[in-house]
Amino acid sequence: MNATEQSLLHAFSKKSSTVEDQEMPIRPLNASSAEKPEIDVAIGGLFDILKAEKSVVEKEPEAFRQAVGNILERRLFYNPSFDIYGGITGLLDYGPSGRLVELNVLSLWRKFFVNEEDMLEVGCSALTPEIVFNASGHVKKFTDLMVKDEVNGAFHRADHLVKGYCESRKKDVTISAEKAAELDNVLAVVEDLSAEELGAKIKEYGITAPHTKNPLSHPPRPFNLMFQTFFGPTGSSLGYLRPETAQGIFVNFMNYYNDNGRKLPLAVAQVGRVFRNEISPRQGPIRAREFLLAEIEHFVDPENKSHPKFPDVELLEFLMFPREEQEKSGQSAKKLCLGEAVAKGTVNSETLGYFIGRVYLFLVHLGIDKERLRFRQHKAKEMAHYAADCWDAEIECSYGWIECVGIADRSAYDLCAHSEKSGVSLVAEAKLAEPKEIEKLVITPVKKELGVAFKADQKNVVEALEAMNEQEAMELKATLESKGEAEFEVCTLGKNVTIKKNMVSISKKRTEVRKRFFTPSVIEPSFGIGRIMYCLYEHCFSTRPSKAGDEQLNVFRFSPLVAPFKCTVLPLVQNQQLEEAAKVISKQLKSDGIKHKIEITVTLKQIETISASIGKRYARADELGVPFAITVDSPTSVTIRERDSRDQVRVSLKEVASVVTSMAEGKKTWQDVCARLNG
Amino acid sequence: MNATEQSLLHAFSKKSSTVEDQEMPIRPLNASSAEKPEIDVAIGGLFDILKAEKSVVEKEPEAFRQAVGNILERRLFYNPSFDIYGGITGLLDYGPSGRLVELNVLSLWRKFFVNEEDMLEVGCSALTPEIVFNASGHVKKFTDLMVKDEVNGAFHRADHLVKGYCESRKKDVTISAEKAAELDNVLAVVEDLSAEELGAKIKEYGITAPHTKNPLSHPPRPFNLMFQTFFGPTGSSLGYLRPETAQGIFVNFMNYYNDNGRKLPLAVAQVGRVFRNEISPRQGPIRAREFLLAEIEHFVDPENKSHPKFPDVELLEFLMFPREEQEKSGQSAKKLCLGEAVAKGTVNSETLGYFIGRVYLFLVHLGIDKERLRFRQHKAKEMAHYAADCWDAEIECSYGWIECVGIADRSAYDLCAHSEKSGVSLVAEAKLAEPKEIEKLVITPVKKELGVAFKADQKNVVEALEAMNEQEAMELKATLESKGEAEFEVCTLGKNVTIKKNMVSISKKRTEVRKRFFTPSVIEPSFGIGRIMYCLYEHCFSTRPSKAGDEQLNVFRFSPLVAPFKCTVLPLVQNQQLEEAAKVISKQLKSDGIKHKIEITVTLKQIETISASIGKRYARADELGVPFAITVDSPTSVTIRERDSRDQVRVSLKEVASVVTSMAEGKKTWQDVCARLNG
Repeated sequence: MNATEQSLLHAFSKKSSTVEDQEMPIRPLNASSAEKPEIDVAIGGLFDILKAEKSVVEKEPEAFRQAVGNILERRLFYNPSFDIYGGITGLLDYGPSGRLVELNVLSLWRKFFVNEEDMLEVGCSALTPEIVFNASGHVKKFTDLMVKDEVNGAFHRADHLVKGYCESRKKDVTISAEKAAELDNVLAVVEDLSAEELGAKIKEYGITAPHTKNPLSHPPRPFNLMFQTFFGPTGSSLGYLRPETAQGIFVNFMNYYNDNGRKLPLAVAQVGRVFRNEISPRQGPIRAREFLLAEIEHFVDPENKSHPKFPDVELLEFLMFPREEQEKSGQSAKKLCLGEAVAKGTVNSETLGYFIGRVYLFLVHLGIDKERLRFRQHKAKEMAHYAADCWDAEIECSYGWIECVGIADRSAYDLCAHSEKSGVSLVAEAKLAEPKEIEKLVITPVKKELGVAFKADQKNVVEALEAMNEQEAMELKATLESKGEAEFEVCTLGKNVTIKKNMVSISKKRTEVRKRFFTPSVIEPSFGIGRIMYCLYEHCFSTRPSKAGDEQLNVFRFSPLVAPFKCTVLPLVQNQQLEEAAKVISKQLKSDGIKHKIEITVTLKQIETISASIGKRYARADELGVPFAITVDSPTSVTIRERDSRDQVRVSLKEVASVVTSMAEGKKTWQDVCARLNG
Repeated sequence: MNATEQSLLHAFSKKSSTVEDQEMPIRPLNASSAEKPEIDVAIGGLFDILKAEKSVVEKEPEAFRQAVGNILERRLFYNPSFDIYGGITGLLDYGPSGRLVELNVLSLWRKFFVNEEDMLEVGCSALTPEIVFNASGHVKKFTDLMVKDEVNGAFHRADHLVKGYCESRKKDVTISAEKAAELDNVLAVVEDLSAEELGAKIKEYGITAPHTKNPLSHPPRPFNLMFQTFFGPTGSSLGYLRPETAQGIFVNFMNYYNDNGRKLPLAVAQVGRVFRNEISPRQGPIRAREFLLAEIEHFVDPENKSHPKFPDVELLEFLMFPREEQEKSGQSAKKLCLGEAVAKGTVNSETLGYFIGRVYLFLVHLGIDKERLRFRQHKAKEMAHYAADCWDAEIECSYGWIECVGIADRSAYDLCAHSEKSGVSLVAEAKLAEPKEIEKLVITPVKKELGVAFKADQKNVVEALEAMNEQEAMELKATLESKGEAEFEVCTLGKNVTIKKNMVSISKKRTEVRKRFFTPSVIEPSFGIGRIMYCLYEHCFSTRPSKAGDEQLNVFRFSPLVAPFKCTVLPLVQNQQLEEAAKVISKQLKSDGIKHKIEITVTLKQIETISASIGKRYARADELGVPFAITVDSPTSVTIRERDSRDQVRVSLKEVASVVTSMAEGKKTWQDVCARLNG
């Protein structure tokens, strides 16, 4: 990418947001799970409007994406998995640079969330038996509707086809106003249509398979997005790979609650790979079949969703897009004050609001451009039926607005579901403000009399008596009091027995209770680490002319905390003394745990043209996002050069490692260092 | 577990090693993949020999294991996954304590290997297409042989049944010397028997299904231990979950090699979950279906397996068990000097030796008892057929000697296999010491003449000519020279054509080559992180009497680096001033990134009996392995108590966090701190 491309990109980016204000399809489309062909269609729509500048902007987002993607692959941030075998769509490997960025992002995430909020971090199995996802609803509902090309057997997502059709029809200026309104209507609800409704639309519109134009199967069939497998050799024990880490936490809730001293709130965090069998994954690093989630399950008393640290974030202002705004015409995300959004009920609780604020701070701290970050509330129909509220942190990149963090109030849904399915009570307790008197049923079988009457069956009869509910017990009591005996069914014996009045005492007793028991609600911030990383790459990428002005150089402007390598150590010339000095610095950095590169072998050709060589070596480091370069140009002192300003300071050999370490760890800034050393 | 049990354990442990010297089945059995019933059988054998003390020792390892296991589950190091649904054997969840230990172990591992050796750490997909494991041989060979209980359908590993039979028969004192020798013979080779041989043994010995005594299916069938799944909706794209992380590295070799400046050695590391579908996993944390591997693939020039840092480890002495020793009668692991073992060729290369030494240092640094750690060489038959040499770091625990790290020279096997299957050359290059002259075949088709003669077929003819090997080319040349033309088969056309002399020039040219190309060998240290952690738990566990002497208290003697929590902060009494001071300390520790516990709520009952309360709180922390307790007994200064010595020092409130931080990070020892503060 050169300067022209770069400036074009900025032009495009500006235009995108203009267009968004006009409510063009590019936003909702890219924000959702649109695949490339649909995006192309939408982008086509955008360009039609911008006809005057069409020739300039046309290929921009794709060109930008490709330019960045090429560097990311070449510098081993990631590459398609199993590339030598042609790869498998939706699978990516992180190379050394990408893995270091991932570790840095996770380390910051732990600091920002797990440590700051005293969360419990756990690690649960990815392999999961079927019963767990039956209980959670994933077996039934974690599906996409698909149709099949009747000729070549290829599968397509039904909603994507209908969406693509509507968007392309809308571009036809000859359609009536009614038709346009109808298409808008379909687009607004397409993600919520049932198989039958989608099938009907496909028939009505005569939609055929993309490219081939073959007929499509009818009606659309649900395809479960979980990968299936079997435990053990019998083939009878069905399991799934988890599509989220949360269920592992829910089924262990009582363990964690007890470990937390039976107190709420209780926050449990988990970082782990999850697996989703996308029908036809595209969008490279954005829609993967295997990816890393970092999830937090913050359990609260549903009667108290306040958060003691909410005041720390309530003054924050950032782009928010409440559902009412999305439903109005011509609206986009606007800067709102978080405190006000919670006070007005736009965000449904302080705790949800607190996490929205923390997620904002985290992403901006990582290096996400806050002008290209918004919090979009799920529309009523878009939310899971059990959710009380849900906001997505969406980051804009060349693929559009991408959901990178979901912050949902899942209510008590999951714990209730697992309680019911497993028969194990997953509840918390709270002290009542004042003790309460309640009536309690007391059933006391008289074992001696029962033993005489029923001998070996006594135990079953006792258990049956004790298992009566209040109504059964009071009816039995009434019968015994009026008739002196009663027929009583003992299921475990498969017969009725006669119970006499002296065999059981039934009464109601008033007792004082001091606790209430309840199923906690859970607020869940769920971070797609790979998506955040990809957006970060795009936001940090820039180009600038070389000093000579004859070429465009690539720079990743990573913050020192995120950068895969914190510095590079370069002896100015091939010289044993300088190389030894470089090794001393490297050793010190290593013992401080600072990731860096050292280049101690300079080719003869480079020595001939030293200045060019140093410039090239800086450029190579800039392209990798290395924030500092240490040029060893004397045996006792060195030059540190900062990547973005290209400013330099001289530091003694003795001091250089600790100076760079303090900047790499975020304890000092480049400005601090310059002020001290130049001042 | 009480003191008696503890002393019994030591007695048992001593006896184990005595017995081992006598070459009892306990070693090879436990070292391999024996399951619990078989171990019980073996332990039974051990106890028969030790009849005199049988009653004392009998239940010891199981009792110890259960005691430790109970605490590990109660304090949330791990617990069975999906427990509320009855669990799935072979799956474990790490609770907050276990996850912290895991993160600490990984952090030390990275420091010790990745950073120290400048390795590239990568993260590859766990989902893997079939073709990769076809190439690697896993689809064919990553299997266990199993037989089926013909009545209830349960599966059993055939080798375990034969092994169990032989071991139990051997205990019969009435068998002849020949019979005993035969049984020993079978035991020595049981893991290498084919399906037919195992089936024959089962028939010969009349072995039936364990417990049920039902007949078994015949012959044993191989069961592949990889979990299968399908990509996408068609069900045609078979994939597997990786059973090791290594293949992801091999298929990406060229990327990493290029990133490393096309230089060897090149070491690539990967930490990731792997999945093995064990037939009937037992041994809880030792034999899991999903577990974390940390693997290193160190690629070297097969002509140069020296290691520049070998002198750093060559003087180490530790328990080694070469294959020759294992094959002799009555031998056990002996302390050998690593340098000598390499010099004598017992270990086949310096690089392999270097990693053995580093693994030893790593494990001991973690806290593994070096007297219960040995390096056992694979026997010739035990090694993968391609391996040049292989040593397992085995750690002794209540399950016996457990393979925790495998250090193998996999030779060039994997890279060759993927090269061949994918058609992509996976080779490295090296400069020749001196340039070499070689004869090179040069085939130059004369396209003009060929075009005139063959028109549309020209391209196929040209390709066929260029594809000739040396012999074919020289034969064609001879024919053309003698007869002026020749019949020539063009496979892609499915016919012969007539080639005339003017249509192709064939010659040999002398060229100078300065490089040789070769497939690197790979040395692979592969760490089973979960197994190492479990052994560490057992090695760090101990009990001691309470101060009052009235009860036995549990202590995990984790080193500060490994301990899940570095300290606990305890206000001596419930008092606002002390609690505020405790919070100040906690805040400082948090900002230093030091994991700790703080207990600011003391019950009234505890206040009544303060000394007991503090003792109980120490005991609770000791049981979790917390190395330091900070008792806040004044608003300006505190007491630090060390877990193992139970010694205490007073420190100012201001200084305490930094003192604990320096010990938690391994920068200072307790002795350093005591010397300074008491001295």
